[in-house]
Amino acid sequence: MFFASDNWAGADARINQAILDHGGGFTSGYNNGELDKQVEAQLSQIFECDLSVFFVATGTAANSLAIASVSKAGSVTFCHEEAHLVSDECGGPEFFSGSRLCPVPGRLGKMDPAALRTAIARFPADFLHHGRPGAVSITQATEIGTVHSLEEIGRIAAVAREHDLPLHMDGARFANALVSLETTPAQMTWKAGVSLLSFGGTKNGCWCAEALICFDPALSGELAFHHKRAGQLFSKSRFVAAQFKGYLDDDHWLTMARHANAMTARLAAHIEASPHARLAVKPDANEVFVVLKKAMAGELRQKGATFYEWAAPLSHSDLLKDDSEALYRLVTSFATSAGEVDAFGAALKG
Amino acid sequence: MFFASDNWAGADARINQAILDHGGGFTSGYNNGELDKQVEAQLSQIFECDLSVFFVATGTAANSLAIASVSKAGSVTFCHEEAHLVSDECGGPEFFSGSRLCPVPGRLGKMDPAALRTAIARFPADFLHHGRPGAVSITQATEIGTVHSLEEIGRIAAVAREHDLPLHMDGARFANALVSLETTPAQMTWKAGVSLLSFGGTKNGCWCAEALICFDPALSGELAFHHKRAGQLFSKSRFVAAQFKGYLDDDHWLTMARHANAMTARLAAHIEASPHARLAVKPDANEVFVVLKKAMAGELRQKGATFYEWAAPLSHSDLLKDDSEALYRLVTSFATSAGEVDAFGAALKG
Amino acid sequence: MFFASDNWAGADARINQAILDHGGGFTSGYNNGELDKQVEAQLSQIFECDLSVFFVATGTAANSLAIASVSKAGSVTFCHEEAHLVSDECGGPEFFSGSRLCPVPGRLGKMDPAALRTAIARFPADFLHHGRPGAVSITQATEIGTVHSLEEIGRIAAVAREHDLPLHMDGARFANALVSLETTPAQMTWKAGVSLLSFGGTKNGCWCAEALICFDPALSGELAFHHKRAGQLFSKSRFVAAQFKGYLDDDHWLTMARHANAMTARLAAHIEASPHARLAVKPDANEVFVVLKKAMAGELRQKGATFYEWAAPLSHSDLLKDDSEALYRLVTSFATSAGEVDAFGAALKG
Amino acid sequence: MFFASDNWAGADARINQAILDHGGGFTSGYNNGELDKQVEAQLSQIFECDLSVFFVATGTAANSLAIASVSKAGSVTFCHEEAHLVSDECGGPEFFSGSRLCPVPGRLGKMDPAALRTAIARFPADFLHHGRPGAVSITQATEIGTVHSLEEIGRIAAVAREHDLPLHMDGARFANALVSLETTPAQMTWKAGVSLLSFGGTKNGCWCAEALICFDPALSGELAFHHKRAGQLFSKSRFVAAQFKGYLDDDHWLTMARHANAMTARLAAHIEASPHARLAVKPDANEVFVVLKKAMAGELRQKGATFYEWAAPLSHSDLLKDDSEALYRLVTSFATSAGEVDAFGAALKG
Repeated sequence: MFFASDNWAGADARINQAILDHGGGFTSGYNNGELDKQVEAQLSQIFECDLSVFFVATGTAANSLAIASVSKAGSVTFCHEEAHLVSDECGGPEFFSGSRLCPVPGRLGKMDPAALRTAIARFPADFLHHGRPGAVSITQATEIGTVHSLEEIGRIAAVAREHDLPLHMDGARFANALVSLETTPAQMTWKAGVSLLSFGGTKNGCWCAEALICFDPALSGELAFHHKRAGQLFSKSRFVAAQFKGYLDDDHWLTMARHANAMTARLAAHIEASPHARLAVKPDANEVFVVLKKAMAGELRQKGATFYEWAAPLSHSDLLKDDSEALYRLVTSFATSAGEVDAFGAALKG
Repeated sequence: MFFASDNWAGADARINQAILDHGGGFTSGYNNGELDKQVEAQLSQIFECDLSVFFVATGTAANSLAIASVSKAGSVTFCHEEAHLVSDECGGPEFFSGSRLCPVPGRLGKMDPAALRTAIARFPADFLHHGRPGAVSITQATEIGTVHSLEEIGRIAAVAREHDLPLHMDGARFANALVSLETTPAQMTWKAGVSLLSFGGTKNGCWCAEALICFDPALSGELAFHHKRAGQLFSKSRFVAAQFKGYLDDDHWLTMARHANAMTARLAAHIEASPHARLAVKPDANEVFVVLKKAMAGELRQKGATFYEWAAPLSHSDLLKDDSEALYRLVTSFATSAGEVDAFGAALKG
Repeated sequence: MFFASDNWAGADARINQAILDHGGGFTSGYNNGELDKQVEAQLSQIFECDLSVFFVATGTAANSLAIASVSKAGSVTFCHEEAHLVSDECGGPEFFSGSRLCPVPGRLGKMDPAALRTAIARFPADFLHHGRPGAVSITQATEIGTVHSLEEIGRIAAVAREHDLPLHMDGARFANALVSLETTPAQMTWKAGVSLLSFGGTKNGCWCAEALICFDPALSGELAFHHKRAGQLFSKSRFVAAQFKGYLDDDHWLTMARHANAMTARLAAHIEASPHARLAVKPDANEVFVVLKKAMAGELRQKGATFYEWAAPLSHSDLLKDDSEALYRLVTSFATSAGEVDAFGAALKG
Repeated sequence: MFFASDNWAGADARINQAILDHGGGFTSGYNNGELDKQVEAQLSQIFECDLSVFFVATGTAANSLAIASVSKAGSVTFCHEEAHLVSDECGGPEFFSGSRLCPVPGRLGKMDPAALRTAIARFPADFLHHGRPGAVSITQATEIGTVHSLEEIGRIAAVAREHDLPLHMDGARFANALVSLETTPAQMTWKAGVSLLSFGGTKNGCWCAEALICFDPALSGELAFHHKRAGQLFSKSRFVAAQFKGYLDDDHWLTMARHANAMTARLAAHIEASPHARLAVKPDANEVFVVLKKAMAGELRQKGATFYEWAAPLSHSDLLKDDSEALYRLVTSFATSAGEVDAFGAALKG
């Protein structure tokens, strides 16, 4: 019963196979190889547009370089107050960009467009003391397992566009959000106003396949230097390319994401059916946040379940009835089995 | 006849097998897994000391974080004028450290200890305008395929120690240097005065296995934050750990390095036997620098050889007789075959 | 009726005289001159302790270098959500320190010690993803014209000390706060737990006399490099030293601050007596925040008063009854006359 | 006999008077005051073009912000190997720009245009590993007291223009160079290809009057943010404006520079006439570099002369016959008297 994180699983068999398939022979490194170019072309087809792809080691790197590439002296990047950028990257985005992050509130992990407009308004164009707006970043799926609808993305993008600010999407769980919305990659990104995408594959079945995808050709040239300077330009980059090939071929990435989401839905059903647990938020993707008695959480762990207690985010500090309860996060992945989920459900019945 | 770089090869079969072997099941990420700890213990045994290991995506990252961790405001890091830090990392070490690199001359890619002492002396302790010495960095094997002897490392380390400066070793080709000297990892590093080591496995048969090894416990705590902030803390870190396991088990890394070095020696013999080529430098490890008529280089390429022209480094600008000649670099690896080398030798005969 | 800012006035006559008095002859620059040392000794006597003094161009520089000197990779500095560091320095503290600022709420411009403890607790020592606490900064007098009592400073300092965090004080209006409390410089700083002080003289009668005062000898050596590297080490530093001499001699700084505070108190009395205005906050120093009908503000300006509308700070967003009102800031200084204040009072009567 | 530096003198009487003249009344701060605008207009007239002026605390700040405003990720700035940027600013330019400085050789403190071209050629456009050329910076007058002719500036500017690189001029001793060439400010700057100028007034009679002058409107907007973020935007900026007014009115700055240069010429004549000294370089401005027996230097100091020994710059390491000799720098200023110079001359006769 492994629900601690989607990065606790290893890699899917197809991903491993792709590495083996493409491991032979000699080929140019540093993203100049044939396979790297194939993957870029494949992503271009999937996203229905020209784009540039920068493989990176981690989501922190993708996010940090994205923000860095659009920041100038005194820039401020607006993101949700619970965003990974703000809370889980040890100051990486600020370090790489030399820019401040401005947290914006919003329900269900989603930046409130009106609150964004208010936050931006605090930086009048003729008053440099405060700094200046630089970019907007949203997370899809969000940090609490919800997914912005296309309309919600569009409303945030509209505010960004009003102020001529580039929009970045942290897509660490992009595939899970995509299949949740049953939309296309293009619809969920550049057609909705996104110009930079952190495209995560690691949590969804790869070993290490993260990419910063840039839809704006004007930024790509600059990003290449940020990318290399940051120590993120892999020499044997084909090992990432191979993973992405295995990931994207035959829509395998979507298949894996659908499975992970289905496992979360199944988990949510068990939770709703249990007298000992209640959903903190209705899950849209592959994470479920649940309120449990601490004693119950202890029992579940004794029975072999792994999962993390979650510091109640600012916007949900009223979730808990009293100190005997706590908020917990459970995450499913391509590797989660229905049996595991049902075992957890059984354990929940007490 | 692939001699362009040791990163043109894929990964050795044992490395791939190790990834497959350790891919099953669920385990904690972010360097907290069991396998990660095993590898740290294994390296500790190999280096005969306590140490901390930080897996990173690239050698640029290892070098940059090493320098960053020992730099303060106004620090200057001394390295050879042809060092990878200075010439091939797009300003990464300076960006991460906020520190300047001061190039130091020296024959055969090795920093001259006297020149190092002179360079340091330009920063008197009571004159902060110039900045202050921060660290010394050497490359083993060097950028032109030579290897510092233990005595040479010791002489540089002595100057560093005189000025209380930490010594970093860029070991992108650590294994090749090690087997060239037929010494121990401990002798070539901390026993010689090295406190930070960029330990490269990628060029010697892995996919992506680079580590910053820290012999100084006082630095490890700080490095952990630099590492995460830089976007270098892999989530599924066991995929690097697995590679290192396959790399280190049964001294496989040394076997691969011995093979690569032998292939370079065989290549050098062909070059010395050829009337159309001459060695620029006697090779110690797995790179050979050769002077060829440009026309000859063209012919070799037509016959299928890949290799790079090399901008004559500053300390070797007198290598070329005239404009009809150029300097070329040929690199061998675990994947180079004797047949390939001999084919090149035959082609060299004209 | 100039109430726009205390930096709209020129310099006091004694300050100008001091510049003239010390302008003759030749003397060593870069803080090595005799006068610079005299001023350091004088400050040492005034603060009753050993200290180091770094003259800087602006309060932004003093604050930024203070935070930079105590920050490491991933550090987070805690300050009040309305602090000048956060809102008016164009990202300077983050740029110099590579560190994030974490805004902490609190009434009347003062950080709430409990909120500070909660904020720090979000950074558990064993979880580097979030970053780590680096420093605490308070502003004395605060951004809305209040003054922390010694007890209030002590409570914040106690939380900082619990977590082993250095405490910085932004003393842009240090003198005004000091005379408001009728305490000693030592009591209000190091005896209360402050290790770094931005000591402002410019707003209180100087031209350009700002200093970063460091009570912790362990930090001074590092600060010297930050100071020079930041382009803040004046060559003819004696022109700052001379200003400080004129400022400090005969307690002239306290005399000027007392005058400025008295003018604000007089202004506040007029406001309280007026049917057209009300105090937003009871002023402790030389700034008064007042709620006016916008129409009334327009009239006052027509009669020659200068003052700024103030974006209602987060913690006071409920100050305004409706859109016809706005919040305004009025500042007095050494150069404000009672006549001016009374003229404003008369204008307020309508 | 004060020849240690031109920053050992205080301020000229006219500068002090200007501060007093403009000290009364209330005026807007942060470069928004009337006087600030007058000075900008006056500089615009003197330079015969539109321009933006940013007052800064030090030459280090002017240089660092200039380089920062034109640098991007991986940028490299080319400057003379003895430039103040490289050797005397404690890493400030690198810190502010995140960019590397690449030292270029050249005789007499002047960058050799051919060497510049060679240095730039080491950064081919299609190879981002090395980084990329970002800017060129020259110093006028140079660090060893020579002055680039307009033709020499033009040749360097031509190389910069070929590569589309902005040209910065460090004019810490701009006035001394200008009167040496008997040319116009426009000829020596933007007409010759300079787009950013560090315009120094401090060494030539002011207290603290340094400005970064920007001839390129496209850069000015960005510089405003760099300037504020760096803690270089003075609140009571009129105290710098006033100094510049006193400096520029009636060509007083040129009068002072002519005097300083004449004093250096007089000093040089004494040196040439002396059997105990020889000129290291023929002086063009207000600094003279002289080779003396160390014993002689000791005698001169005993007689009351102040001056610094100078580390023989790289390009002049052959100046000294043996260890009994050393290189010394003597600087004259607006405050140097002919009597002082002649007294030194007399002392030199032995």
